[in-house]
Amino acid sequence: MDIPDVLAWRDGYIEALDQTALPHQVRSLRITTVDQLVEAITTLAVRGAPVLGAAGALGVALAVRQGGREGWDTARLNAEIKRIADARPTAVNLRREVTAVAGSIPQGRAAVEAAALAVVGSSVTASEQISRRGADWLRQACGPGRLRIHTHCNTGSLACLGWGTALGVIRALHADGALAHVIVDETRPLLQGARLTCWELGQLGIEHRLACDGAAPFLISQHLADAVVVGADRVAANGDVANKIGTYSLALAARAAGIPFLVAAPESTLDSSTPSGTAIPIELRADEEVTGQAAPAGTRALNFAFDITPAELVSAVVTEERVILRSPAGS
Amino acid sequence: MDIPDVLAWRDGYIEALDQTALPHQVRSLRITTVDQLVEAITTLAVRGAPVLGAAGALGVALAVRQGGREGWDTARLNAEIKRIADARPTAVNLRREVTAVAGSIPQGRAAVEAAALAVVGSSVTASEQISRRGADWLRQACGPGRLRIHTHCNTGSLACLGWGTALGVIRALHADGALAHVIVDETRPLLQGARLTCWELGQLGIEHRLACDGAAPFLISQHLADAVVVGADRVAANGDVANKIGTYSLALAARAAGIPFLVAAPESTLDSSTPSGTAIPIELRADEEVTGQAAPAGTRALNFAFDITPAELVSAVVTEERVILRSPAGS
Repeated sequence: MDIPDVLAWRDGYIEALDQTALPHQVRSLRITTVDQLVEAITTLAVRGAPVLGAAGALGVALAVRQGGREGWDTARLNAEIKRIADARPTAVNLRREVTAVAGSIPQGRAAVEAAALAVVGSSVTASEQISRRGADWLRQACGPGRLRIHTHCNTGSLACLGWGTALGVIRALHADGALAHVIVDETRPLLQGARLTCWELGQLGIEHRLACDGAAPFLISQHLADAVVVGADRVAANGDVANKIGTYSLALAARAAGIPFLVAAPESTLDSSTPSGTAIPIELRADEEVTGQAAPAGTRALNFAFDITPAELVSAVVTEERVILRSPAGS
Repeated sequence: MDIPDVLAWRDGYIEALDQTALPHQVRSLRITTVDQLVEAITTLAVRGAPVLGAAGALGVALAVRQGGREGWDTARLNAEIKRIADARPTAVNLRREVTAVAGSIPQGRAAVEAAALAVVGSSVTASEQISRRGADWLRQACGPGRLRIHTHCNTGSLACLGWGTALGVIRALHADGALAHVIVDETRPLLQGARLTCWELGQLGIEHRLACDGAAPFLISQHLADAVVVGADRVAANGDVANKIGTYSLALAARAAGIPFLVAAPESTLDSSTPSGTAIPIELRADEEVTGQAAPAGTRALNFAFDITPAELVSAVVTEERVILRSPAGS
């Protein structure tokens, strides 16, 4: 197992694995300015809801350093920090951690950096707790035997500074000898499943098969999986889950097949200030991500980056602190 | 509107539009041997259930010509014809039309060619009847106003030697001034929606947007479509529908959103000898179609080319002869 550091604070700048270059190249970005950080986030070089939270936290430290070098006043510093918080609208972690760490600015640079590093550290710890709790829940819900798990997008060490959320649960099952194999959706348009999750699973020596997103509900209907496990970018107060586009179709299929649909996410993803899924802003990204080279020139697309899974299709949400039961597993 | 001939008999050989080259190149294949025809079918240069039926019919004529040139005995001729029938396992039309036209072999070459050309002609007629009947049914089911239609894969003139099946229904709505716009799934792994359907809709001047397959159920849940219309590769005796992978997820989403899910297909697609979807062979294609350039080298895939939509999720099947009501529309 060899997954390099995804995000690290190097005393004055952020070093981040460039996730757009994987799996063919393993290279790092040296991020020294807010501009560079915002670009890394919007291009998805830095991605994954928990990593975005950590990047937001370190981003405040970065902005304070850059502001010191360039003599920013408070208004400018606040404006730059807001740009980081707004870089992606759906993941609640980014804004939350930016706001939390920015609260330390009156205590000075050292306090800001300590607060940011604490976010990174607690993200790693949370990830392992989520992973173990999710694996235990699945083994109870699905019964004995090695489990076949269907997952979506990338929710492992690349997304979470630790074991991961959904992929962390899979890793914990594997560590317990309770995993048969994983079916991974390719996760169009940006193919995080094909590029990143397959790469991580390969590094970990975990058996897996790649499937097209449109095939996933059929594979589930054919009882090729014992459970579906996904991450989340935001969980609303009523339990509706925003996650990578394609998640809702898995939840529909899991319900129809009578298997559990588990959401694995840190507490920071639970957003009590958003009453339901309809209030979650869904990022609409560029047409070209979908049209690519295949469609005729000038084709328009509908490229929502996330979708909403209603709470009634979710069996449970597992966090670093608890299991929140929604609908009975497999009901 | 300018869509070139998709498949034609040129007195001794088949001329076929090479659908792997679209939308960037419009070029034809000259198919003079069974080998070339089988390759064109397996590579999807020639594709679409009704076109496959016509290609099978013309393929028998082609085999008889080649057999005459090369002095094949009956066993060899039958073996070559069987290779055509077996070139793709899921579409029932291919085998059905091959068998029907092969029945004329005892009457000689001219009878075979006449029978094959009759299949082509009736395919064109059927397509227009399906299109008009499907459009009428949708206007009744959805009520007045211009309709927003979600569709999958490619089911137009490129697939059907005429207006098409599902895309023919869309074209008939457009001709009636009853169409607002179309949402087209890209249809991974081979992107027939992005490459072919967007091209056809562009040629026809029909407003459309391209979406990732995984996004489709969410778009439907957001009430961005008034109905889902798809084609079929085989309809079993109990009404289960085999169609391009990704179709089942649309049917689940249409049911959850309470909108009609219409299947448009010629009578030749109805297969009374197959009791239910579980008896339909599902073509498993090469891993590389899914893994492509994105996944790490050596990644394995699960690449089923079709899926099964259970009859209870289908509102109606429209053919050139009738509307077969399944579940109440939008129930």
